[in-house]
Amino acid sequence: MDNLKQQALDYHANPTPGKIEIALTKPTESAHDLALAYSPGVAEPVREIARDPEAAYRYTAKGNLVAVISNGTAILGLGNLGPLASKPVMEGKCVLFKRFANIDAVDIEVDVSDPLQFVQVAAAIGESFGGINLEDIKAPECFEIERLLSERLSIPVFHDDQHGTAIVTAAAMLNALEIQGKQLETARIVCLGAGAAAIACMRLLLTLGAKRENLFMIDRKGVIHRGRDDLNQYKAAFAVETDARTLADACEGADVFLGLSGSNLLSQENLVRMAPNPVVFACSNPDPEIDPKLAHAVRDDLIMATGRSDFPNQVNNVLCFPFIFRGALDARASTINDAMKVAAVEAIRTLTKEPVPEEVSAAYEGASFEFGSEYILPKPMDPRLLDRVSQAVANAARESGVARI
Amino acid sequence: MDNLKQQALDYHANPTPGKIEIALTKPTESAHDLALAYSPGVAEPVREIARDPEAAYRYTAKGNLVAVISNGTAILGLGNLGPLASKPVMEGKCVLFKRFANIDAVDIEVDVSDPLQFVQVAAAIGESFGGINLEDIKAPECFEIERLLSERLSIPVFHDDQHGTAIVTAAAMLNALEIQGKQLETARIVCLGAGAAAIACMRLLLTLGAKRENLFMIDRKGVIHRGRDDLNQYKAAFAVETDARTLADACEGADVFLGLSGSNLLSQENLVRMAPNPVVFACSNPDPEIDPKLAHAVRDDLIMATGRSDFPNQVNNVLCFPFIFRGALDARASTINDAMKVAAVEAIRTLTKEPVPEEVSAAYEGASFEFGSEYILPKPMDPRLLDRVSQAVANAARESGVARI
Repeated sequence: MDNLKQQALDYHANPTPGKIEIALTKPTESAHDLALAYSPGVAEPVREIARDPEAAYRYTAKGNLVAVISNGTAILGLGNLGPLASKPVMEGKCVLFKRFANIDAVDIEVDVSDPLQFVQVAAAIGESFGGINLEDIKAPECFEIERLLSERLSIPVFHDDQHGTAIVTAAAMLNALEIQGKQLETARIVCLGAGAAAIACMRLLLTLGAKRENLFMIDRKGVIHRGRDDLNQYKAAFAVETDARTLADACEGADVFLGLSGSNLLSQENLVRMAPNPVVFACSNPDPEIDPKLAHAVRDDLIMATGRSDFPNQVNNVLCFPFIFRGALDARASTINDAMKVAAVEAIRTLTKEPVPEEVSAAYEGASFEFGSEYILPKPMDPRLLDRVSQAVANAARESGVARI
Repeated sequence: MDNLKQQALDYHANPTPGKIEIALTKPTESAHDLALAYSPGVAEPVREIARDPEAAYRYTAKGNLVAVISNGTAILGLGNLGPLASKPVMEGKCVLFKRFANIDAVDIEVDVSDPLQFVQVAAAIGESFGGINLEDIKAPECFEIERLLSERLSIPVFHDDQHGTAIVTAAAMLNALEIQGKQLETARIVCLGAGAAAIACMRLLLTLGAKRENLFMIDRKGVIHRGRDDLNQYKAAFAVETDARTLADACEGADVFLGLSGSNLLSQENLVRMAPNPVVFACSNPDPEIDPKLAHAVRDDLIMATGRSDFPNQVNNVLCFPFIFRGALDARASTINDAMKVAAVEAIRTLTKEPVPEEVSAAYEGASFEFGSEYILPKPMDPRLLDRVSQAVANAARESGVARI
């Protein structure tokens, strides 16, 4: 077992198991304190909430509380290992919520894979929380789960594997296209992978102005085109009229390659087929679709991003999800709509073009911080993300009429 | 609104809403820390748990984590106000778990009143936790819910309104009977109320040696006797062959009155009907079945307890539930069985007979701490409860074969 793996096990096990605990925010020393916190005093907030459910935001933790819910059917890149095995990831997500946006998040692992039953369980417990972050749920079930759950609840429901990925990817891609002198509206985009993240990325790019006929999605059977009869409704929405059948066909003259698939699936040959000044996002983890060294060896005109922190331009959901929830909670939004997602994209993009504080550059020794091919996204430790993204999202919630405060 | 009520609202609202938050137990400052807490490091504990579910106790918070689950159908004495209104109580329970036994507890409010659906929801999320504390669920549904949920899960499921109340009541009652020179085996016991707590108290007293024919339960329609045809199965188990029909009939010559009903339901006249040296537990909250001053005015030979902290002998669940869970979690018990409940009763009883540390007597100015009619139970702030009760419970779990460590 290599060093990082053993360190990770030690980190999780010692000195106490896990990564999060409950802390008390009010005094509990005296009997009087406890008479306020519990019986008999607690009857008062109970009565207030019974009279007006919104009072739960005043007297309980609900307004700053997110449930991180999974059934473990698609854990990281590891597959369907079940709900209990997903718990370290869900607790990790709770860590990131707290660390980056001071949001209290609790993990709930649901031992149900049927989407309708999953919705029933999550809907039954949902209103206790200020928002729900769905996580590591396999496609295509995740689409129906998110839609039905959103319909049943008055709080934001957000599948981060879809939308967090899409928002950060879109911000990075728009910046990369700008640097390459290209437009999203005319870019020919190849997306290798047709899972939850890929579908969400394509949907958001459409919202942002990409043209459907320029999007070439590729699943295990090749290009998703109009002639195929084996497509679920989510993929079918992206079927294009084309003669392209293979990844090689699709790469011919493409401006963008987005990999959300598996390691080493993009060859140097296919990279060479792309248009001049291409944008290549190889986001498979832990190993990208093409090793950046191999990519740069055959093309010196590309801008590249990966999912890894040891290369420039890491596409990392943590740039988005803590802050989009912070904004949604701050505005007491009933949902996270397209306007809020676009606002997050724009806020992330804009921040990338500003000079970084010294504390940020000091934390990433040797990294570039000048807007350009090696800096198309802010760094996760950039403390400005919190205010910038969350305020943009809260404003968008208010302007689009889904905010309650 | 009186002073305590306004103080309770302020306590819950300021400076932040609610009483609990999430805290991080591991370093999260550097990118390296985060690579251990989340991707890519987190994949290792995921793999370990997928291989062996018990590893969840090593690498996640599960082993010290209790879900406090309610549907709000019987909140305190306030009735069915729904799941969201129960949230302050459930968060309060979480506060007590942390404050008294360093257990991390999260509240889950379930918007389902049908017992089978409730079980489905709670069972689906249950194995994420080390134990489940059911709370404020109305009778008789609570009995079926607890039984079915226990069958479906490998972790302890404990309905505190039943068993916490029963354990503390039994400990106090055995001490009171001892002081009055009476035996549980021969005591004639009147129980006013036939809800969840009352049924659980009677069940535990039977386990401890009380005789079924000496137990007179009384519901809204009078004494629960063999001639009644309006009893659910839980009450029917306590129907006795008797001519007694009213509370007055039952009180004639009774050694014990246990009130788990409503305020001012025991008259001075009925108290006078009881046998010499009676034991009177008037546990209705906030107002007892008989005011202690009125009771003492007509009898000087009684031992009295209430649910209130401003009279001697407060029967308070907090003497039990944090510690019985601490013991169950420490032994990784699969259930909380009768042996563990009896061990808790005995540990609480025994502690009452020992001299208290000065810090305890200092915290309760003017209270008696000499085993006797005004001191039949330890005080909630007695720090010895943690070790004594939890160790007794853990030992009983091991001896009765339900412990996994």
